Amino acid sequence: MRTFIAGLAALALSAPMAAPANEQTARTPGDVVDAAPASEWRRIPASDLLVMDLAADPRGQERRVVIQLIAAPFSQGWVSNIRKLVAARWFDGTAVVRVQDNYVAQWGDPDGEIPGKARALPRGLSTMAPSDYTAAISKSTPPFTALLRGEDPYLTHAGTDDRRVLGAVAGFSQGWPVAMAPPTPRSAASTTGADAQGVAGAAWPLHCYGMVGVGRNLSPDTGTGAELYAVIGHAPRQLDRNVALVGRVISGIEHLSSLPRGTGEIGFYKTAGERTPIVSVRTGDEVPGLASYEYLSTDSASFAAYVDKRANRLDDFYIQPAGGVDVCNVPVPIREAKR
Amino acid sequence: MRTFIAGLAALALSAPMAAPANEQTARTPGDVVDAAPASEWRRIPASDLLVMDLAADPRGQERRVVIQLIAAPFSQGWVSNIRKLVAARWFDGTAVVRVQDNYVAQWGDPDGEIPGKARALPRGLSTMAPSDYTAAISKSTPPFTALLRGEDPYLTHAGTDDRRVLGAVAGFSQGWPVAMAPPTPRSAASTTGADAQGVAGAAWPLHCYGMVGVGRNLSPDTGTGAELYAVIGHAPRQLDRNVALVGRVISGIEHLSSLPRGTGEIGFYKTAGERTPIVSVRTGDEVPGLASYEYLSTDSASFAAYVDKRANRLDDFYIQPAGGVDVCNVPVPIREAKR
Repeated sequence: MRTFIAGLAALALSAPMAAPANEQTARTPGDVVDAAPASEWRRIPASDLLVMDLAADPRGQERRVVIQLIAAPFSQGWVSNIRKLVAARWFDGTAVVRVQDNYVAQWGDPDGEIPGKARALPRGLSTMAPSDYTAAISKSTPPFTALLRGEDPYLTHAGTDDRRVLGAVAGFSQGWPVAMAPPTPRSAASTTGADAQGVAGAAWPLHCYGMVGVGRNLSPDTGTGAELYAVIGHAPRQLDRNVALVGRVISGIEHLSSLPRGTGEIGFYKTAGERTPIVSVRTGDEVPGLASYEYLSTDSASFAAYVDKRANRLDDFYIQPAGGVDVCNVPVPIREAKR
Repeated sequence: MRTFIAGLAALALSAPMAAPANEQTARTPGDVVDAAPASEWRRIPASDLLVMDLAADPRGQERRVVIQLIAAPFSQGWVSNIRKLVAARWFDGTAVVRVQDNYVAQWGDPDGEIPGKARALPRGLSTMAPSDYTAAISKSTPPFTALLRGEDPYLTHAGTDDRRVLGAVAGFSQGWPVAMAPPTPRSAASTTGADAQGVAGAAWPLHCYGMVGVGRNLSPDTGTGAELYAVIGHAPRQLDRNVALVGRVISGIEHLSSLPRGTGEIGFYKTAGERTPIVSVRTGDEVPGLASYEYLSTDSASFAAYVDKRANRLDDFYIQPAGGVDVCNVPVPIREAKR
């Protein structure tokens, strides 16, 4: 573990990576992204996409939402359940049932809480534990790039009841916004023998705009994956480590974020007619003609330069660069790939 | 100034205020707000409200947006301009011209950039300088309550070219989300004689969800107040100190945030028919029957307890309190007042 710890610490504290050659001319974050070489982009497998087609809007326009399922080691029990639900066509005919302003749009079985009316779940779904909201750090944990300048109000002082979280940093892993708590907490580890007590490091995905999570009832229920939501407002980071995140919307978020808000409690629609029907949900490899998508590697030099530009806007519009940026204000660049 | 500095430092570093008696039973942030005594609520004068009536929606439903203008000492030149524009009925017949997902909804004269077609501005509008984006701290600066645990990625390391910003903290003043940089920077002030050089403290409002700002062209243009936007996504804090903030939406934000997104560049509507007409904008004291609104004093014990509950969710749904919260994830409680 020692090598990994050292590597993590180095990443967390290091200066930004060497800027790519184009940084001299790139002025905006978008310029940096546009100039990133093809070698820094990573193709998203079509099998990791969900294509959710909503009923056409009142003007007859199609509404397609494309979701990227999160990568291992995060939330894989729920992702596996969702794949089974999609394979069983379980989502077809469900609906968007709740839209709460500055919070979430949520979909699933409108009758899911009504005994006798609830849609039967397919067999073989797994049941996860709250401990599955975080992934233990191991030697096989994918690379993690800490956000430039590490302040994060949700991580620095986190729960004194849980020493594993002390010194956690926000950053990115495999293109996802992630927090990582080193295996050895900064405080008191050497004096209390935390390592000897087996305090492991942990990593978990973050509730940024567009992220997709798993609705659940009160703990210890952790949700099956049959009820999902997308974040459509300011990042509700208080949900981190309290709910499973299983993906993010990479195309068509506007079909969820611009829906009328529900007027019932916490944004549920009061009447069936207000709900938006879900026609079908398929994995990307089932959808002929679907675009290919790619994301900018969060381990790349261009991504480091992009983070720096997000933190220090120097283009003509700005007169005062902030000097920092929060992890959810650094959307990972994702685009349709040229074929 | 010494007294003020000491007071600010004490606030920034102090433990949360004593919890109100009800905290033993209040479990959620909402419980704390509901239990706050009447003495902790502050009435918003009707003259500080703007009532913006949009054209009815496609189903014939009325769409009213209520905006609270920001308090002194912030942005008062722009607020004064907006009052003149409203008095001249200048906004009547303008439109929402741009809605960019996870960013802003913007309104004003659709022909404002077209010479010969642009709507004439009333006489007597003031022109502000970029320095007016921040307010100098003085003895008469209203009380500032620092956010519990002060990490803020936009403030801690801010521009090395501007020492005044070092050590700035996020918090609240008169019910508004605000950053404040103490008159004496933490770094190097004593060795460089910063005080002797007249480096003053500064405070500025923050781009949280629902805040209303002033569109502008490239600096040194600072905008008149005739083109306004509301934040409808994750807080774009990079705009702080780069654009004037003049208020916030306190009712009806859904009429802006759920509008169809524009498909033109940066969310502008491509056709006139996509825009949402603005029927009228009036100050609150011009609107018969308008509800009264009040906000929870950000200097109150209940507000301190509310911040603590936002940072440490302990109600039944949560299993892992975060231990911190960012300033834009602490919406100041605002409600209709009982008459």
